[in-house]
Amino acid sequence: MSKSNKKHKRIYLDYSASVKPNPSSIHDEGILAMKKLNQSRKKVSEILSSQPEEIIFTSGGTESNNLAIQGLIWKVLELNSYHLIEELIHSTSQSLNLISKGKKELKYSLPHIITTNIEHPSILETVRMLARRKLVDVSIIPVEGNGIVDVKKIVNEINENTVLISVMYANNEIGTIQPIKEIAKQIRHWRKVHNLNNNFPVFHTDAIQAVNYLDLNVEKLGVDMLSISGSKISNAGRVGVLYKKKSVPFSPMFGGGEQEHGLRPGTEDLEGILKFTKSFQKTQLEKEKETRRLVLLRDYFLAKIKKIIPEVIINGDLKNRLPNNVNITIPKIPSDLLVIELSAKGIMISEKSACKSGDKKMSSVIEAIRRKGNKSFYKEDFFGSLRFSFGANTKRYDIDYTIKSLSSIYIKLRKWYY
Amino acid sequence: MSKSNKKHKRIYLDYSASVKPNPSSIHDEGILAMKKLNQSRKKVSEILSSQPEEIIFTSGGTESNNLAIQGLIWKVLELNSYHLIEELIHSTSQSLNLISKGKKELKYSLPHIITTNIEHPSILETVRMLARRKLVDVSIIPVEGNGIVDVKKIVNEINENTVLISVMYANNEIGTIQPIKEIAKQIRHWRKVHNLNNNFPVFHTDAIQAVNYLDLNVEKLGVDMLSISGSKISNAGRVGVLYKKKSVPFSPMFGGGEQEHGLRPGTEDLEGILKFTKSFQKTQLEKEKETRRLVLLRDYFLAKIKKIIPEVIINGDLKNRLPNNVNITIPKIPSDLLVIELSAKGIMISEKSACKSGDKKMSSVIEAIRRKGNKSFYKEDFFGSLRFSFGANTKRYDIDYTIKSLSSIYIKLRKWYY
Repeated sequence: MSKSNKKHKRIYLDYSASVKPNPSSIHDEGILAMKKLNQSRKKVSEILSSQPEEIIFTSGGTESNNLAIQGLIWKVLELNSYHLIEELIHSTSQSLNLISKGKKELKYSLPHIITTNIEHPSILETVRMLARRKLVDVSIIPVEGNGIVDVKKIVNEINENTVLISVMYANNEIGTIQPIKEIAKQIRHWRKVHNLNNNFPVFHTDAIQAVNYLDLNVEKLGVDMLSISGSKISNAGRVGVLYKKKSVPFSPMFGGGEQEHGLRPGTEDLEGILKFTKSFQKTQLEKEKETRRLVLLRDYFLAKIKKIIPEVIINGDLKNRLPNNVNITIPKIPSDLLVIELSAKGIMISEKSACKSGDKKMSSVIEAIRRKGNKSFYKEDFFGSLRFSFGANTKRYDIDYTIKSLSSIYIKLRKWYY
Repeated sequence: MSKSNKKHKRIYLDYSASVKPNPSSIHDEGILAMKKLNQSRKKVSEILSSQPEEIIFTSGGTESNNLAIQGLIWKVLELNSYHLIEELIHSTSQSLNLISKGKKELKYSLPHIITTNIEHPSILETVRMLARRKLVDVSIIPVEGNGIVDVKKIVNEINENTVLISVMYANNEIGTIQPIKEIAKQIRHWRKVHNLNNNFPVFHTDAIQAVNYLDLNVEKLGVDMLSISGSKISNAGRVGVLYKKKSVPFSPMFGGGEQEHGLRPGTEDLEGILKFTKSFQKTQLEKEKETRRLVLLRDYFLAKIKKIIPEVIINGDLKNRLPNNVNITIPKIPSDLLVIELSAKGIMISEKSACKSGDKKMSSVIEAIRRKGNKSFYKEDFFGSLRFSFGANTKRYDIDYTIKSLSSIYIKLRKWYY
């Protein structure tokens, strides 16, 4: 920067904008910040095989998932139903009669969402919240006993009001991988046959758990929206990303400035975004090698567990499964007790989605797969579950130590519970 | 921690929750993280004189302001209007007749919000968005020529459907300080006299620009909700806070987990929150001293500007004004040109709120005060504005250099524009 060398001084008098220069300012340092932001956007878009303007940076995975659903639904409501409600409120008696006759039509004019019963709470609770608020109709498709959704059951649920189908790429609790490409293909087929509106239904996938291991090429996947989160990527911090295809109708959730193409107001977290981008790129380069390494560890762990705990149930499909996920049920022994015992030995595991805290209900994911599985499993004793999820620092000797610890805890506790 | 000393190992197998331990997990490291989070919450609440459970951590100021408005409005809609809409949709012909007669009532059943015309876009655009979505009625009170709202004009606008009054503590562009305590007092009086519902109207203040200099004691201020943001505090990062009094009815904007008392789902940004809390505490300790220092600098700067640019207009009240804000209009000379010229000399200033970017419209804040002021100012030449905002690193010699630079730029440009 020959120009900046000539400067004698650097005086920042824009503290009210932000204590550090940010991409929304028009002075030199603002422009430099915007350049860096755009470079990050371009790098992220290259990994996803999208356009830079299709990348929206958010505060994390929960926001990305909420924005995907609520951003689309609000645009649809602004285009459709709110006209209807307005009409209702301001209606003349003539149109009131019309409405009286056409009640059924009115009811079905709510936008319709299809999702599965093992989505993360940031999807499932969001669609339920919108349904409670009378903004959408929702169909929740139960997955099969292996924790994978039957594509036909999704397709059968599509109707002319279906604006969104959201199916997670990989499950956060049991690690099962959903047939995203196949669902996308069937949706494209439905669109072609029915030809009502080429944009609908929009297909979204929550790829938050898939980010380190699975292909994120949105063209190959055939998705219109995709969520990822830095919190699952080593050293990536808390930034989230929503990929949104240009053609997807969309309104912001927040009112405010024009940041992120006007779709996510709020001064950009440039520092966070730069950190995220660097770590995200690194993860993608290591993806294949890391996947091979973890598949070996995972399968080794599974084989050992089956030996030391004969009653163990492995939850979720074994083939279509994240390389870093082991989810088991040890019937009758309370899972929170097992977590505490393991924790005392220095082993930190989870018994359910870490984003649904402070609530002592059983896992809805485990409930979902038990219903479909062997009926004798459908009793409370079989609903607790332990999730061991691996990452960059997980080594073979960690697995050995964990197996050893789990074995001694199991031997100690089984006397009490069996 | 004598217990942890006994551990031979520390094995983290909770990567699917988050690559680092987070407060939502029940293992030892999760519990430790939750403890730290709660300590932060307590420290922040002590500064505000609130209860810890009244503190909600968010991703920043835009989210805090949106959550304040949308969180309250959704709860109100869930309690009231949506029953009405449901009734409309599922109504029998009998109730349709009823509605037909009672049209006016229906119209006024929308929750009503009062705010001012110089709020930050994260308030003003949010209430406009909700109004466009037919969820609320909005009254926008114009401020006076000095950039301060007339309390009587707010009180006169309150009606039985008014659920929220939102007035910023200090303005981001012109630094004027609003009479928050007086507004709060009048609202309490209105509640007492009308006694319709003790909770309404709820009073919210956007304290984002006030955070380093003004009293944030919510009891003394008499506010029910208050927003702050780390982006205006040295080294505080991007965390936002919303103080929400326990009695304020509230629903989350995001669907998801139970974090932040169920009001802001999403795994907590513990690292960011710890950093924010430390910096926020530091700022509060330095508040009085720093205010005195900046008032001297500001008044020195103002006096100098008036000397070198006789035509200059100082925007906003001079008495009720943030210590770090100077906002001026140099009639006829385009403000973006002045910003670029100053930037070339290494001086970074702003010409409008940094959160409203990429948009070339004139400042609505300046427009708001010009309308009320001297009518001869109400022409486009007088609408550009420059904001010099100071902070921790601003020194006397920075001001001298800025004055010198501004003077030479002004002399150069006035030949062309005067």
